[in-house]
Amino acid sequence: MKKILVINGPNLNLLGTREPDKYGDDTLENIKTMLQEKAQKLDTELEFFQSNSEGELIDKIQSAKNQFDGILINPAAYTHTSVAIRDALSAVNIPTVEIHLSNIHAREEFRHKSYTAAVCIGQICGFGKYSYIYGLTALVTHFNQ
Amino acid sequence: MKKILVINGPNLNLLGTREPDKYGDDTLENIKTMLQEKAQKLDTELEFFQSNSEGELIDKIQSAKNQFDGILINPAAYTHTSVAIRDALSAVNIPTVEIHLSNIHAREEFRHKSYTAAVCIGQICGFGKYSYIYGLTALVTHFNQ
Amino acid sequence: MKKILVINGPNLNLLGTREPDKYGDDTLENIKTMLQEKAQKLDTELEFFQSNSEGELIDKIQSAKNQFDGILINPAAYTHTSVAIRDALSAVNIPTVEIHLSNIHAREEFRHKSYTAAVCIGQICGFGKYSYIYGLTALVTHFNQ
Amino acid sequence: MKKILVINGPNLNLLGTREPDKYGDDTLENIKTMLQEKAQKLDTELEFFQSNSEGELIDKIQSAKNQFDGILINPAAYTHTSVAIRDALSAVNIPTVEIHLSNIHAREEFRHKSYTAAVCIGQICGFGKYSYIYGLTALVTHFNQ
Amino acid sequence: MKKILVINGPNLNLLGTREPDKYGDDTLENIKTMLQEKAQKLDTELEFFQSNSEGELIDKIQSAKNQFDGILINPAAYTHTSVAIRDALSAVNIPTVEIHLSNIHAREEFRHKSYTAAVCIGQICGFGKYSYIYGLTALVTHFNQ
Amino acid sequence: MKKILVINGPNLNLLGTREPDKYGDDTLENIKTMLQEKAQKLDTELEFFQSNSEGELIDKIQSAKNQFDGILINPAAYTHTSVAIRDALSAVNIPTVEIHLSNIHAREEFRHKSYTAAVCIGQICGFGKYSYIYGLTALVTHFNQ
Amino acid sequence: MKKILVINGPNLNLLGTREPDKYGDDTLENIKTMLQEKAQKLDTELEFFQSNSEGELIDKIQSAKNQFDGILINPAAYTHTSVAIRDALSAVNIPTVEIHLSNIHAREEFRHKSYTAAVCIGQICGFGKYSYIYGLTALVTHFNQ
Amino acid sequence: MKKILVINGPNLNLLGTREPDKYGDDTLENIKTMLQEKAQKLDTELEFFQSNSEGELIDKIQSAKNQFDGILINPAAYTHTSVAIRDALSAVNIPTVEIHLSNIHAREEFRHKSYTAAVCIGQICGFGKYSYIYGLTALVTHFNQ
Amino acid sequence: MKKILVINGPNLNLLGTREPDKYGDDTLENIKTMLQEKAQKLDTELEFFQSNSEGELIDKIQSAKNQFDGILINPAAYTHTSVAIRDALSAVNIPTVEIHLSNIHAREEFRHKSYTAAVCIGQICGFGKYSYIYGLTALVTHFNQ
Amino acid sequence: MKKILVINGPNLNLLGTREPDKYGDDTLENIKTMLQEKAQKLDTELEFFQSNSEGELIDKIQSAKNQFDGILINPAAYTHTSVAIRDALSAVNIPTVEIHLSNIHAREEFRHKSYTAAVCIGQICGFGKYSYIYGLTALVTHFNQ
Amino acid sequence: MKKILVINGPNLNLLGTREPDKYGDDTLENIKTMLQEKAQKLDTELEFFQSNSEGELIDKIQSAKNQFDGILINPAAYTHTSVAIRDALSAVNIPTVEIHLSNIHAREEFRHKSYTAAVCIGQICGFGKYSYIYGLTALVTHFNQ
Amino acid sequence: MKKILVINGPNLNLLGTREPDKYGDDTLENIKTMLQEKAQKLDTELEFFQSNSEGELIDKIQSAKNQFDGILINPAAYTHTSVAIRDALSAVNIPTVEIHLSNIHAREEFRHKSYTAAVCIGQICGFGKYSYIYGLTALVTHFNQ
Repeated sequence: MKKILVINGPNLNLLGTREPDKYGDDTLENIKTMLQEKAQKLDTELEFFQSNSEGELIDKIQSAKNQFDGILINPAAYTHTSVAIRDALSAVNIPTVEIHLSNIHAREEFRHKSYTAAVCIGQICGFGKYSYIYGLTALVTHFNQ
Repeated sequence: MKKILVINGPNLNLLGTREPDKYGDDTLENIKTMLQEKAQKLDTELEFFQSNSEGELIDKIQSAKNQFDGILINPAAYTHTSVAIRDALSAVNIPTVEIHLSNIHAREEFRHKSYTAAVCIGQICGFGKYSYIYGLTALVTHFNQ
Repeated sequence: MKKILVINGPNLNLLGTREPDKYGDDTLENIKTMLQEKAQKLDTELEFFQSNSEGELIDKIQSAKNQFDGILINPAAYTHTSVAIRDALSAVNIPTVEIHLSNIHAREEFRHKSYTAAVCIGQICGFGKYSYIYGLTALVTHFNQ
Repeated sequence: MKKILVINGPNLNLLGTREPDKYGDDTLENIKTMLQEKAQKLDTELEFFQSNSEGELIDKIQSAKNQFDGILINPAAYTHTSVAIRDALSAVNIPTVEIHLSNIHAREEFRHKSYTAAVCIGQICGFGKYSYIYGLTALVTHFNQ
Repeated sequence: MKKILVINGPNLNLLGTREPDKYGDDTLENIKTMLQEKAQKLDTELEFFQSNSEGELIDKIQSAKNQFDGILINPAAYTHTSVAIRDALSAVNIPTVEIHLSNIHAREEFRHKSYTAAVCIGQICGFGKYSYIYGLTALVTHFNQ
Repeated sequence: MKKILVINGPNLNLLGTREPDKYGDDTLENIKTMLQEKAQKLDTELEFFQSNSEGELIDKIQSAKNQFDGILINPAAYTHTSVAIRDALSAVNIPTVEIHLSNIHAREEFRHKSYTAAVCIGQICGFGKYSYIYGLTALVTHFNQ
Repeated sequence: MKKILVINGPNLNLLGTREPDKYGDDTLENIKTMLQEKAQKLDTELEFFQSNSEGELIDKIQSAKNQFDGILINPAAYTHTSVAIRDALSAVNIPTVEIHLSNIHAREEFRHKSYTAAVCIGQICGFGKYSYIYGLTALVTHFNQ
Repeated sequence: MKKILVINGPNLNLLGTREPDKYGDDTLENIKTMLQEKAQKLDTELEFFQSNSEGELIDKIQSAKNQFDGILINPAAYTHTSVAIRDALSAVNIPTVEIHLSNIHAREEFRHKSYTAAVCIGQICGFGKYSYIYGLTALVTHFNQ
Repeated sequence: MKKILVINGPNLNLLGTREPDKYGDDTLENIKTMLQEKAQKLDTELEFFQSNSEGELIDKIQSAKNQFDGILINPAAYTHTSVAIRDALSAVNIPTVEIHLSNIHAREEFRHKSYTAAVCIGQICGFGKYSYIYGLTALVTHFNQ
Repeated sequence: MKKILVINGPNLNLLGTREPDKYGDDTLENIKTMLQEKAQKLDTELEFFQSNSEGELIDKIQSAKNQFDGILINPAAYTHTSVAIRDALSAVNIPTVEIHLSNIHAREEFRHKSYTAAVCIGQICGFGKYSYIYGLTALVTHFNQ
Repeated sequence: MKKILVINGPNLNLLGTREPDKYGDDTLENIKTMLQEKAQKLDTELEFFQSNSEGELIDKIQSAKNQFDGILINPAAYTHTSVAIRDALSAVNIPTVEIHLSNIHAREEFRHKSYTAAVCIGQICGFGKYSYIYGLTALVTHFNQ
Repeated sequence: MKKILVINGPNLNLLGTREPDKYGDDTLENIKTMLQEKAQKLDTELEFFQSNSEGELIDKIQSAKNQFDGILINPAAYTHTSVAIRDALSAVNIPTVEIHLSNIHAREEFRHKSYTAAVCIGQICGFGKYSYIYGLTALVTHFNQ
């Protein structure tokens, strides 16, 4: 059974309670529940992690080494500013999929650039909570290739 | 039963026969077969279209109005240069998902920018043929929301 | 009697039926009718052409040589990306007026630049269908100078 | 009867006497006469104003409020540098058309950008004195829409 | 008793009568009254000046030398384009505070840059008419340091 | 009685003890005392928070929801690099004022840009410790509008 | 006997009849005759193709696979804007030489950049019709290395 | 006897009384006296003009036509921002020399660019009041060539 | 005996175990041992600190005041993005040397810029673990100057 | 009999002995021998010159005046940085062809720009030693036109 | 008696014999003679130096230390590319005036920037051979201040 | 015994006698003596070379092939402008260390970029004469790895 670490970046703990027009109605808890169900079907085990701290996110990514088979990450705002998270992902070298709730290409110019996507398998954005589902599916499919 | 138009941009007809390290081993025909199977499960009808011509791609997008419920598009190289395809997608206003076989963020600088993604629901890139599967799933899920 | 070729670029065939807030309510057919009336008053003969294909637009521009006295062109999205249409206009060297339905200066940054306007007599933008009328008038006036 | 304020920016008082290859042979007085005739036909009343001073141009634009139904403006060099005139046009919120004698897209790079066009209905450039005629026509047509 | 010159740049004479969503309901006259009251409490004397002309604003700034102890300036649109006003402020070398009614950082990109702020004590923006109050307070406090 | 959270970003804990020519002589403790006095007069309750960690600052901003009526923030160096703090402020949607001790427009080019100011009511910079006083006053005034 | 596909991009069909100062007096037909003679001497077989359509050019490039030993291409205006033609050349992976009649480095800034040259063996520009001769020679020499 | 118009831009009326380290000790009056003496030796007549207003400077430049044989201009801050003064100089087409008291290349980046120098004979900067002397000499020498 | 704080930024805790081609085989522990030996010879005392958190790095830098005579810092990814660490170094004003294991000039463009180096004595990059040795030597030499 | 000066820029003396994957196996001596043979067939006389010094290259170019009918130049690295060599070529005004061994468009961004090509007849790059042959042929053909 | 070193950069040895429309008819020898006459009147001694080599120019500048009281330099093309000549001028710290025959502001964009002017007293450009006269006069005047 | 070539770029021959605040008090001769001592301890032989000429520096670098085991280079101003020196270092492929006396990151923007560092092992800057010592040590250590 594959183990996947689901990492959520800054402000994602606020999901569902605010700005639903941008990020959808679901809370991170809802997404977790939904994703757990999906994981069960895919015979996969998940661990969830959320932090607003760039350093803690890096700590967690590093700790994934030998503990997890894949990473599903929504780096949120750090996507656009963090070379350090990119380096962490690059260093642990675990298959990673980057996801975003909103369509970053339809927002401010500074959200179009991703430091982290270049060291991931791929990127999925714009499908709200379903970005997580598709990202999880993509990771599991990747293991089976 | 929802009808989805699957549009493939320039050079995608060459898939599988060349540069497999970049785009995978599967031909567009394989992807079609695989996607048809998935569509059947999702109770969806697909039509495939591929063209190397920006104009024909626009013609096809326009023709989708009232004929299709969604568009799954891999604009390939035109992603980065075509304002006209962007305008076509914007004009027909049909739910659209943009997909890419390769991870465009891990390639040349000029492939990081997408003119078209901004008028789509979202973008999926980097998962080879599976980008199509996830894109199709995303569209169908979108219809059911 | 002067002959003028009226060229319409990508997505203009959709006029009137969609995004009326951006491009007005009139269809290209309406514009044609209105413009024909104006042409008659100006003792001018018109031929209409619309294509979504950059190549066909170039073919048509080239064919204007020795057949037409002037060109009225709305290159639409190709305004901002097509060096090839610019070169075609420059090569046939027929008096040309560039028109736009919408005010391109009030839209996205990438629509402010025109590759084609530099090889035209002038540019008219922002007056909806009337941009065509003024463009036609400008061409005819140009012939009489 | 509609009243239109015709505003001419810096150096336009020199029209006709110098650099005729760039701006045509007509003096501003000629243009005025020609435009008055056109206005009469369109059952419109005109007031002319020219100044080399950014501040006086702003003063005049402001004074148009409740006095004029439309503004026809050739901001000349201030087109490319004046946020203040843009703000004035935006503040009085009177239908305005921007015109240029020469084709600004065929001149120096710094003349391609317009601060003012974005707050106008549209822009007409490249037709010499006739840019004024078309601009006036466009304004009157706008009132009748 | 300290004397402060309150300088208002282009279009600020229109305050209160137009675009209240951007600049608030108060007229410049209201602001003057309100500011006079505040000045009285701060034992300070004010002189108001408004002009749409860059040159007149510079003349006024220059005349402040030996006449005023401080300048409270809202350069409006000239903030972003006037090296000359910057040089005037720099030349008279009187303590100056720059204020803006609206939050310039939340508007167009070209309004984020300030030529003038660099030669002032500080900048206050976004608080509508209260920007003037805070600016006045800041100047008076500065005198007492 | 309104409650306001006063947030101080990286290195502000060093205030008063170092680089007094840039940031003034007062310690953060002095500022706190001074601000408390002001708050008392304004019938307002304050809570102070300082952290060098982007993540902790975000945590604190998030915790303000339903606990505080306003935020007074000096994001210091994070002003120029943190999309994540911007997103946090945007998410909690509490009236916020951004302040800076020094005049950021008179320093290095990279300090002229603010990611955070765009989601605040306004910004005050350059008045040393008094920037806090004016920021607090601005917040309280905002509540009373 | 080697087979070489000679591809001519947009507006090259107009060669010789217009703008001879920029592109020389020879027609594409003349160039063809001249190049055929050269090909005979080099024991090489040529096929000519010209299109104004980016899509048709891509179609033709793709069709060269297994049919031709080399490609001699003058992408004309598409040189500077077409990622799609670059991708087609890259995909078929046939030895290709890029040629230009005029010296692109001595023309407008936007003609200095070539998307296509990077995937060719080399580039030859500025020698009018002889650019074709040198390009053909270069290809044949390449085969013999 | 040649007549030369000496035009001084914004803030130059303050010369000598402020910022002597940047602009020297001499007042504009001193420079005038010194320049008059030099003019007498060169058998030349001078007229002096200073204004802080861009518009008045343009008015004066325009009035020089048929009245003056040459212009000696120190556009000060407008050097870097005024397309309108450039156009005025270009329109009157009188031999003009641009001068600056300070060395503009040794100051802020935005002072390195000159809109006006391109339409002058030449530019002299960095020699304090002597820049005027050399500029006058250059003009007179130009007449004798 | 001088005391030096050795600060290691994000992901340096992973040293030696991963990506040895980029960063060398040695672990941070090895480097520590090697550096301790060197320190002993230089009659210097070291303290090591590593964190993935920008905030903790700033906390540590601040705590160095009055505790350490020098700082040896490898800010890793934060080199290129952290104004806050720059400000911390600038604030504590302790002699600091910046080091990098890899040659940042031979890597991605975004790694060529250093926010932090400008407030250090100097920078050493590209010598793997020996960058630490040279950095330590440089600091000690600096003390003896 | 035409005389042609063959100029080789910096580091070309090392040809053949190093980095053969980038520049080919042939030494400059080999190229000379091969080119001499070709020259004999073309009834042309050659003189070879190589220098690593920008100044000596300029001296040589200048000396070509009245001594040579054409110049074949491989400016190597100076292509991208030398305005002075461009000016020398422009000054002597002898027909010149620029050549490069490698395909400069397929290398680092800073090698895409050529200061010198703009003042040559044309440019040939990417064909190794044969670039010299084609360049020589191009020059001789140019003489015969 | 003051001694002045007159330094001429690349291609200035060709003066007068070529491109007289750009640089005038006079040879460098003529300029020398003319300048010597002027020097005599100014009781100054001149030494002339011209080189096409950046290195020799630097050598000469360095040798001026303690030998010359001033430098008159026309760095020609090196003006725009040589940090090394800038550093040499900065190092010897002798009063220097930069001159140009042509008006560099009226030529190509890349000639508008001067690396060297920033470390000179001032710059004079556009007056042909007279630029030297004015430059010499400026230096001598500088000595007498 | 390893042989190392120590190369010094433009203006370094002036060391110690001028601008000591920027480059230190020591002459190049002092540095040589100091470095010789260090070399002796490291059982290494040094050869010194200084030139102000880019070409001579390239000649020297080339001559190092088979003569030297390493290069210690301070390219001074050429660091920022010389692609040719970069190519020379790349061609000879001898282990090289780049050094700078001053901290280039704390100086003008144009000194932050290094063309040469990318082809060296590493770069050391900011430690005055000691940069040479550390660079030498780094080279010798490199040999022993």
